[in-house]
Order: sequence, then structure tokens, then C-alpha cells
Amino acid sequence: MTKYVRYRTDSTSSSYGILEGETVREIRGDLFGSHAPTGATRPLSAVNLLYPCQPGKILAVGLNYKSHVGTRPMPTHPEIFYKPVSALQDPGVPIVLPRDSTDVHYEGELVIVIGKPARNASKEQARAAIFGVTCGNDVSERNWQAGEGKDLQWWRAKGSDTFAPLGPAIAADIDYGNLLLQTRLNGEVVQKQFTSDLIFDCPTIVSWISGWVTLVPGDVIYTGTPGSTRRMSAGDTVEVEIDQIGTLRNPVAAL
Amino acid sequence: MTKYVRYRTDSTSSSYGILEGETVREIRGDLFGSHAPTGATRPLSAVNLLYPCQPGKILAVGLNYKSHVGTRPMPTHPEIFYKPVSALQDPGVPIVLPRDSTDVHYEGELVIVIGKPARNASKEQARAAIFGVTCGNDVSERNWQAGEGKDLQWWRAKGSDTFAPLGPAIAADIDYGNLLLQTRLNGEVVQKQFTSDLIFDCPTIVSWISGWVTLVPGDVIYTGTPGSTRRMSAGDTVEVEIDQIGTLRNPVAAL
Repeated sequence: MTKYVRYRTDSTSSSYGILEGETVREIRGDLFGSHAPTGATRPLSAVNLLYPCQPGKILAVGLNYKSHVGTRPMPTHPEIFYKPVSALQDPGVPIVLPRDSTDVHYEGELVIVIGKPARNASKEQARAAIFGVTCGNDVSERNWQAGEGKDLQWWRAKGSDTFAPLGPAIAADIDYGNLLLQTRLNGEVVQKQFTSDLIFDCPTIVSWISGWVTLVPGDVIYTGTPGSTRRMSAGDTVEVEIDQIGTLRNPVAAL
Repeated sequence: MTKYVRYRTDSTSSSYGILEGETVREIRGDLFGSHAPTGATRPLSAVNLLYPCQPGKILAVGLNYKSHVGTRPMPTHPEIFYKPVSALQDPGVPIVLPRDSTDVHYEGELVIVIGKPARNASKEQARAAIFGVTCGNDVSERNWQAGEGKDLQWWRAKGSDTFAPLGPAIAADIDYGNLLLQTRLNGEVVQKQFTSDLIFDCPTIVSWISGWVTLVPGDVIYTGTPGSTRRMSAGDTVEVEIDQIGTLRNPVAAL
């Protein structure tokens, strides 16, 4: 397994690196193609980690764990939606409760990072197109999603600024089929499920999407959240931890 | 008024230019900031026009002409959704009917191109953030949008590959408040309405979106379609013409 991170050491530029223990080894080149170490290293404590790649688009799966579907009908195929790239948020930086929001929930998720173009991909081709996986929080405003203030589509519910925390590291060459996912709200475990419980696994999701929407390197796919979720308030801290990958931690702040 | 185009003269690179009559004057620099002519010119007939900017994200408005709302309730605010950047299509290049599609419609639309960052923008700030306007076709598969095969969200209905033709030119410094929009299917006028009939005008749309989703230069917003729409078939040609801006023409092809 290799862990890739993106980070900043000053205010102007970002670098990609490989995380080994507490050391970040800078790389140069194409994260998804040919790249090599520059020889420069930094202690992890001396860098600011950023969301670990710069996706051209963000897709997400709704209703992908039986524990989250509840009494709703089971989906017969992956149900997909978009989040805008403007919603991306770095590890450690606040999720900001947007204007007029009343019911903002966490959704801890395994996130697929695409490494090769995928169009009409078979499941085997889809598996080969997956570069790695990381942690994500598919932050959701329930009133705009399904409440009295429901919008026609989920553009605000899923797409408001800071609603897509991602990171801290992309784990490549990892078996992502049976990892324990846990979400903690102020330290309390509020979601806990293995990725083996996904209704549609990662290659199935990528294959399905690629039948209509071409995927390219850097695109990310939030794979769905397990169990139930709760409202977050300003001052809270939410963590999404996936075994072997790492922990994505974000405070919650008022606008 | 200035018309900006993006074009290719060979298979490897694209350029931005200013269209004056039948001549394209190449520019270099930031389309939305400082740029200057290089001195190179080409006859329009010698270049391949591309979608006229490279947006980081695409938003769209549903139900924004009374003639399209019909008997549905009038929206109280702009209803927004996303199209993925992978759906962009160049002028003159086919709209491809996707796998399993049965009811693919045109939607001729005025499209806003953002030129300055907009976040929580007032209507006046929103007006200043609009760089210009162009023509777009918000291609839509009605079965996936609202039929028996309805998806949870409109990801395929509005986002399949080639479902976002855009161009040919961005008209800047134009009064876009009262332009005649016409859509033609195989030469027959099938949509015809003035942009003064928009329920929510361009600054209102930009201001509304920016309350939750930050807009940045290059982002585009499809503003909604008037009247009714019809199914397209392979072999058809669809044109979206807006006075003073130009005509976006695309053939329709089977997969």
C-alpha cells in the first residue's frame, strides 16, 4: 500500500507527496501517471494537508448500505448524484453551516479516486481504473434534501461550500473491499460499518457510472453512508476514520 | 460587444480568440483577466470552434420560463442542478444518444459565463461577476428525469456524455436582458422566446446560487428553456440561435 497526500508548506503552492509514517516524501510528475521522488522530505507535523487530489468532478452514491436504506425500497442499481468541486474542503478545516441551514448532517464514506479513463467499463476494467481510496464526509442538509424546504434537486443539500471534506491520504494498492469505517461526533462513535456491506461495491459503481458519464483521472466518487446520521452544530468535531487509510477530521463552524 | 471563441487549428492545442466578422484574432493571457492579441489571425472557416471556455463547474436552472412551467407550480426561487464537465460538447459535433436512452430532448438556453468570483453576491455584484453569455443546449433524457425509469437525481438525465453543447462564442459587453432565443429541429422553429421572459433573470440567478455555492471565473450557468420540447433522433440536426450571439448547431447520432 502507498499513501499519497497533497500538502502546503507555505501560502502559495501545493505539492504531492508519499506519506511514510510521520514523514512526507515530495514527488513530482503526474500523480496518476509517471512521478518520482524529488528527494525532499518534511515531517508530517510541518505541513498542512489538503484534500488529496484536485478532481474535475465529484460523484456520489445514495442509499448504498442496507443499514441506511432502512424501510425505503432497495435500489436496483447505484443511484448517483453530483457534488460541485467548490464544495471540497481540506482536512482540519471547518465545515461551515450555510445561510438558512437548519439540519446539517455528517455522512462518513469511503471515496474512490479514479486513476485511468473509464467509459463503458466492464467491472474488471473499472477495477483497473480505480487508483485508490480515501475518506470523505458527504455533508448533507436534510431540510433542502427531503424536508419542507426541499429543492427540486440536491444542489444545496449536497453541494454547499465546505460540504465535501476529503482526505487526508489516498491509499493505493489496498484491498478496499472489507475495511472498517467509523464516524465520530465529538469523540462518540455514531457510524460503524465494514465496506463489505456496501450494496454496490466500488468496481460496480465505477462500471455503472461509466456507462453514461466518462470518468477521468482525479475524479472522485463518494460511495454512500451507513446507518443513521445526526445534526451537527457549530463547535462540534466530526471524524471519519477508515482502517488502514486514516482519519478525516473537521470542526464545524457557524457562517 | 466582443465575441470570444476557443478553437483548434490542429489536433494538439487550443487557442482563445476574438471573433470579428469572419476573422479570428488570437489572444494570449487570461480570458477573464489580462489578455492581449498575439497579432495572429485566421479565417473563421479555417478553424474548428470548441466550447468557448473550460468551466470548472456547470450549473443549470429548471423551470425558468412560464411557457415551460405550464401547469406546474411557479417556482418561488431559482431551482438549480448540476451538469458534469464531461458532458460538454463542441459546436458542430454530435450529441450522442446514450445507452438505453429512449426519450432524449433538446433544450435551447441562454448560458451565463462567470468572469469574477461570486460568493454571497448582491444582484449588483452578481451583474458585475457576469463576463458574458453564450448559447447552450441542456440535452435531457425525459425517461430518466421523470418517466418510469426515473433516477433518484438527474445525473444521467442531464449529465450523460455530450449532453452539454455550448457555444459557439461568448458575447461580452452585451445587453442580455431581451434577446430572441430560437431552437430549430431540422430547420423547423420549435422554441422561440425572448430572454426578457425569464422568471429569474441572470443577476438574480447568480446572486441566488452564490449564497451557497461559490462561483469562479469560467463557471457556466444554463438559465432554463422556454416552451415545450421534443424527442430527437439520430440523423437530426438541432440549432440554438440567440440574436447577436450566434448559432449553436449539433447533429444527433446513435451511440
